[in-house]
Amino acid sequence: MNTSFHPTPRTLMGPGPSDVHPRVLGAMAKATIGHLDPEFIGLMEEIKVLMRQTFRTQNKLTLPLSAPGSAAMEASFANLLEPGDKVIVCINGVFGMRMAENVRRMGGELVTVEDEWGTPVDAEKLSAALAANPETKIVAMVHAETSTGVCSDVKTLCALAKKHNCLTIVDSVTGLAGVPLEVDAWQVDVAYSGTQKCLSAPPGISLITFSEAAAECVRARNAPVQSWFLDVSLLMAYWEGEGARTYHHTAPVNAMYGLHEALLMVQEQGLEQSWQKHRDMHASLAENLTGLGLDFVVHSDCRLPQLNLVKVPEGVDEASVRKQLLTDFNLEIGAGLGAFAGKVWRIGLMGYSARQENIQLCTSALRACL
Amino acid sequence: MNTSFHPTPRTLMGPGPSDVHPRVLGAMAKATIGHLDPEFIGLMEEIKVLMRQTFRTQNKLTLPLSAPGSAAMEASFANLLEPGDKVIVCINGVFGMRMAENVRRMGGELVTVEDEWGTPVDAEKLSAALAANPETKIVAMVHAETSTGVCSDVKTLCALAKKHNCLTIVDSVTGLAGVPLEVDAWQVDVAYSGTQKCLSAPPGISLITFSEAAAECVRARNAPVQSWFLDVSLLMAYWEGEGARTYHHTAPVNAMYGLHEALLMVQEQGLEQSWQKHRDMHASLAENLTGLGLDFVVHSDCRLPQLNLVKVPEGVDEASVRKQLLTDFNLEIGAGLGAFAGKVWRIGLMGYSARQENIQLCTSALRACL
Repeated sequence: MNTSFHPTPRTLMGPGPSDVHPRVLGAMAKATIGHLDPEFIGLMEEIKVLMRQTFRTQNKLTLPLSAPGSAAMEASFANLLEPGDKVIVCINGVFGMRMAENVRRMGGELVTVEDEWGTPVDAEKLSAALAANPETKIVAMVHAETSTGVCSDVKTLCALAKKHNCLTIVDSVTGLAGVPLEVDAWQVDVAYSGTQKCLSAPPGISLITFSEAAAECVRARNAPVQSWFLDVSLLMAYWEGEGARTYHHTAPVNAMYGLHEALLMVQEQGLEQSWQKHRDMHASLAENLTGLGLDFVVHSDCRLPQLNLVKVPEGVDEASVRKQLLTDFNLEIGAGLGAFAGKVWRIGLMGYSARQENIQLCTSALRACL
Repeated sequence: MNTSFHPTPRTLMGPGPSDVHPRVLGAMAKATIGHLDPEFIGLMEEIKVLMRQTFRTQNKLTLPLSAPGSAAMEASFANLLEPGDKVIVCINGVFGMRMAENVRRMGGELVTVEDEWGTPVDAEKLSAALAANPETKIVAMVHAETSTGVCSDVKTLCALAKKHNCLTIVDSVTGLAGVPLEVDAWQVDVAYSGTQKCLSAPPGISLITFSEAAAECVRARNAPVQSWFLDVSLLMAYWEGEGARTYHHTAPVNAMYGLHEALLMVQEQGLEQSWQKHRDMHASLAENLTGLGLDFVVHSDCRLPQLNLVKVPEGVDEASVRKQLLTDFNLEIGAGLGAFAGKVWRIGLMGYSARQENIQLCTSALRACL
């Protein structure tokens, strides 16, 4: 209480936050400047361009939100949805469930498409739901389910939704920069992500992009968005650049330094190289863990390379192992959530955590504990 | 775009962000640990205790929000207000207007008590509004109006509201640690603040506290809070401490390091000493500016020492002066908002910005520009 906090350095191989790159920590420690300073406005412009490159989109309405990924999820629904609108939410884990809860709270008419935890969203089920609900306005799905380590086929699912003239919302909090995401080519209307996964920045802010169709939907609303803080029409006026800029809130200046540096590093490496790095590191980890006799939960066809769900062996107390890894090796891995609680570990290889030294540490430490 | 960002160091004497203390920047640059790490949970517990000391409250429901002050404003109304509830909002500047907008968007029945910009909320007007609206549920007011530099008499206003059995919401974004705020003694039910003013931390997160009566109001709601992200019953479950803790979102780990260090520094100095420091620095600045022939907008009876509104002299282009201060002296002061645009400067002396060296720089630089 009465002394400064000195965290023990850890190696972060859970479901996030992942290891933050020293360049990002260094960027965030630079002196704070004003959020109306011309230099900060220049930074905001650069961030928007870097975000478009990373999301693979030309969307004008592309900006960070001053709150974590769950606020970006809420912003997606809060801006597009009006009470009574029909929304299909594809659920195959915790974050699909959270999307459904958002729709319920906002008075949307909810239709769910449910798949087993550990499997991707089934395109045929979505197709049937769309056929049965022709007046659907929005289809929402999770690209990379952080609770299960599954990657769903966003391209196919969005193509189906578009055949029925729906808007699409895609959660790619764990996906962005870890696996391919092509916002424009895949017809994603709203995509969002977070900083604390494959971008190697601390948690706290999120990234969101709206297509022209999504922006038009916001402009055509009957009633204003209930949330003043998440109203994208107000937010965009703040992010418009010098001259046109309208005060909304005070941007988290230092977090924006970190986001800029993190996005810059992805571009320096190359986005496709970043995807490949995650695949390579996954292959290496998978080989090691298989060597230890551990099994993966998710089929290799739809496995997220950056988030590995491993079955806890029979007779092993999963919490004790995690505790020992943290205590003896300063290594964090994640527990299972929901249906997977007590049954799996979640081993993250996201962003700066996806390194050979981490893989070696994790392998040896797990060997020591098992 | 293609290079790291290197902000020019500035002296921040606007309405916020204020200068961030190097200890806070250093704390935020420490390695990120997991948000479920026992060490982080210990930090969260310490933050809650430090927050109670700073707010002068015993409220159990006292926690940071992972978003800026405007989200804390929204959280206050979103949690207490249900559609049709009558709310009196006292308006004497931009942030009172923003409160009213929150009430409108949430379907509250809005009653406003309006006072001139540059004057405090008039207790007699509030008294009359309460008498005319006996079914009022909530009275909301701004303690320290960032747009006008006025301090309102929260103690008297809350006492009036309590005589009518209303809940009270107080915005003290610019007030906390700069001027006295006694949440329990003054019968404030919900108070919130930000990090980027008198706490000398970067912008991005906020602080909020709910009295037992406010917590009971949340528990007694008919419908869940529309905002999942700002639902304080979910947030509190996340902040409950080890054992009882329920996952909600991923806390902004490094920002919490900074908040802890900032609150610790206030306690090291002493809260009353912090109030006195702001008074002393204001007296020094006021003497200097008066010496330059400049006039203050706000009467000394209700002037915020930490945010000084100064009239732009006849014939002076206020924007040119601000630009010259920034360009030639790396000194940021603030422009007027709303009714005061073009007519005033806002000179902040908040937290770490409230130092003699800043006062001397500001005085000399203004002398050079005028």
